[in-house]
Amino acid sequence: MKVAKFGGTSLASAEQIKKVCSIVLADKSRKLIVASAPGKRHKEDTKVTDLLIALAERCLAGEAAEAALGAVVARYREIAEELGLDDEIVNVIEQDLRARMALDTGKPEMFMDALKASGEDNNAKIIARYLQSQGVNASYVNPKDAGLLVSDEHGNAQVLPESYDNLRALRDRDEIMIFPGFFGYAPSGEIVTFSRGGSDITGSILAAAIKADLYENFTDVDSVFAANPHLVESPEAIEELTYREMRELSYAGFSVFHDEALIPAFRAGIPVCIKNTNNPSAPGTMIGFERKGNGNPVVGIASADGFCSIYVSKYLMNREIGFGRRLLHILEDEGLSYEHIPSGIDDITVILKDAGLEGEKEERIVKRIREELAVDDIVVEHDLSMIMIVGEGMRHNVGTTARAAGALARAHVNLEMINQGSSEVSMMFGVKAVQEQKAVQAIYDEFFKNANIIREEAVSHVRA
Amino acid sequence: MKVAKFGGTSLASAEQIKKVCSIVLADKSRKLIVASAPGKRHKEDTKVTDLLIALAERCLAGEAAEAALGAVVARYREIAEELGLDDEIVNVIEQDLRARMALDTGKPEMFMDALKASGEDNNAKIIARYLQSQGVNASYVNPKDAGLLVSDEHGNAQVLPESYDNLRALRDRDEIMIFPGFFGYAPSGEIVTFSRGGSDITGSILAAAIKADLYENFTDVDSVFAANPHLVESPEAIEELTYREMRELSYAGFSVFHDEALIPAFRAGIPVCIKNTNNPSAPGTMIGFERKGNGNPVVGIASADGFCSIYVSKYLMNREIGFGRRLLHILEDEGLSYEHIPSGIDDITVILKDAGLEGEKEERIVKRIREELAVDDIVVEHDLSMIMIVGEGMRHNVGTTARAAGALARAHVNLEMINQGSSEVSMMFGVKAVQEQKAVQAIYDEFFKNANIIREEAVSHVRA
Repeated sequence: MKVAKFGGTSLASAEQIKKVCSIVLADKSRKLIVASAPGKRHKEDTKVTDLLIALAERCLAGEAAEAALGAVVARYREIAEELGLDDEIVNVIEQDLRARMALDTGKPEMFMDALKASGEDNNAKIIARYLQSQGVNASYVNPKDAGLLVSDEHGNAQVLPESYDNLRALRDRDEIMIFPGFFGYAPSGEIVTFSRGGSDITGSILAAAIKADLYENFTDVDSVFAANPHLVESPEAIEELTYREMRELSYAGFSVFHDEALIPAFRAGIPVCIKNTNNPSAPGTMIGFERKGNGNPVVGIASADGFCSIYVSKYLMNREIGFGRRLLHILEDEGLSYEHIPSGIDDITVILKDAGLEGEKEERIVKRIREELAVDDIVVEHDLSMIMIVGEGMRHNVGTTARAAGALARAHVNLEMINQGSSEVSMMFGVKAVQEQKAVQAIYDEFFKNANIIREEAVSHVRA
Repeated sequence: MKVAKFGGTSLASAEQIKKVCSIVLADKSRKLIVASAPGKRHKEDTKVTDLLIALAERCLAGEAAEAALGAVVARYREIAEELGLDDEIVNVIEQDLRARMALDTGKPEMFMDALKASGEDNNAKIIARYLQSQGVNASYVNPKDAGLLVSDEHGNAQVLPESYDNLRALRDRDEIMIFPGFFGYAPSGEIVTFSRGGSDITGSILAAAIKADLYENFTDVDSVFAANPHLVESPEAIEELTYREMRELSYAGFSVFHDEALIPAFRAGIPVCIKNTNNPSAPGTMIGFERKGNGNPVVGIASADGFCSIYVSKYLMNREIGFGRRLLHILEDEGLSYEHIPSGIDDITVILKDAGLEGEKEERIVKRIREELAVDDIVVEHDLSMIMIVGEGMRHNVGTTARAAGALARAHVNLEMINQGSSEVSMMFGVKAVQEQKAVQAIYDEFFKNANIIREEAVSHVRA
């Protein structure tokens, strides 16, 4: 039994929903389907979720909301008509939305969550209705009836442990179930949404609960790529990834979905496959606990800008027990979390997200570090990028370091930092943001384009 | 005006003292001479300081001490006789020692310091007497009279700021002054010794106080070498080093003297020259604020074993504000100071001195980290070595990283960690202790032996 989750662009129109249904019907084991709200049909389009947020905001502001409601209903009506469904389902959806609009606006977070969640909920109803109209044994499953219980943290729901027991019963139903993603119910009965990547989370919880053979995550790309296609032209597709590799790659904003959504599936040992709704015959990217080696120590390269560094030096810092801890304490006190802390003998650098450190706050933190830790020197550097090279084959692999550093040197990229030694499957380089693209390209070429040539050179070098 | 400090082996015998005096007389600006206690004359010999410690221990234990006293006096008698001095100076020394032995054994630290310090003090008296016997205008300077005041931390004296003003007066004396190293006087009048490298500290303080043109540190090696001669055969001599390079190299047990001893000279901007008493015409190694470049980004390679690592992983650690600080707090709580903290996404490694982490303490710390931080995994690895590559020319030099990593790869050395990003002048590699020698040799060969060949290859590689 498989759980298949489809993203917003996969379900943005009747045409897309038909594609999804034929994908579902093409594999009998695809029984539990997680639906997103209709996404964008083209670049300038508005997602239903955004229409719903606009609607909720008008209601919360006490403004007239009929036009905003009309915009939402119109999207579903268009989908229903093109799917050949009658008006009844559109009336069901409109009544549902009006009922949500009548909820207590005095609890704005609850109100917003109820409106937002309707996007997935009503899309799931349409899809179930369409499959039924095609004579398929299918039904919409309400998360409340199914027992998907979550904490009452609106916009950041955490699944409650009893949900897994409740949801396990779905395994025994002999039909195709359309389950709306993105939300669950608090024990109080309130609708509560998950954080970013919410439908991915629902799919992951369901896959864990029913002990699925596979969790298929359908998006609009053929696979996860070995590098960001915005930085490298036509990067290689990744056939297989381990969870650890996925997690490391996701760190630097690489993921096609939110990696933390995978935790329930990961903990339950369920493999995940990233596939393309628009090209379902492409093999996609398989994510599991292990993978076959392919001779390349590197599986992918991720990068992200928006980092900065605080360099602190103090003669004999090395002798001062507690220096590092006190430095981190100041940052924590100021609500900043650090990313990495490379250190020298009498100096330490803290790498952190750039957004947290600016203006008055930056001045205050620099002053505190200077005064409270009596440092000799402190320098803040902005606009750094982190480049992450990931692969299970890299563990302690000095050759990989040499190749990556060599590629960067030939591309005249200056290294601000290297971090290697903790993770078994990744290595991180810090560079100036303006050199990020050049750096990623150089490393990609080294490990993916010129790989064979370089390997031969290395061998002849050892022999010489 | 120069301050010249001579180490224990440089003053171990009459023959050595004669060499030292001829070195002193060869340069009129060598006016302030810092004397160590007589060191070993050959491998199996015992240093006078160790004889004095044995003597002090017998006194403190209330045991007969005449034989131990005799051993000390015999060393000075032999020196005095061979220098052609009469018995009077030996009697002065014996009376001095008996006076020290009569001090209060109820204050063992004070008693021990008084006995230990006599080694330098009495050797200074002999040297002054010898120079006088040669018709040289020279005198012994007592640190109390000269005003070298220190804190009363026995074995770890800290110079008091007024000492610099007091000692400045030595600048005006028109004679050769022999100043005993290793100790000063607390305001209470007690003798207090410095820590390890004590005579180097005295010389450094004097150089700063009199604003010396140069602080010459005479030892038994021609210079500081680019690598440890025990690991690499006939390493290159280093002609010039900056203070920062010296400090980084010293970290890994590289130094021919205790680098922290240089702080007073460093703060006062006094250049330091390391020279060989047994080969004074060799240029030695000059240490200053800057140096000429010589085309080699690396000036030296240091290494040290005796490190261990604690690897900790926890899924979503990256999201947990304060995790690193709390980990460091546990170590601090257990009295351990860390060296480096490479980190991944969901893991962090702490590198620390091996000696602090063993047996029950290791078990307790592992248990605390596991329980208090609820980590998924914790692994302790012992027997690591750190290799430090140092050079002012390395700042953000990706080419240096590539060359070092390439050299290690060709030598099949596995890298446990890389730390680069904080220090401007060094890069650190962690390797298993059993691979330390191989790693140092490979890096040395890369930057010192094959340097020109490799550079040419690199150029042809870029062109190709």
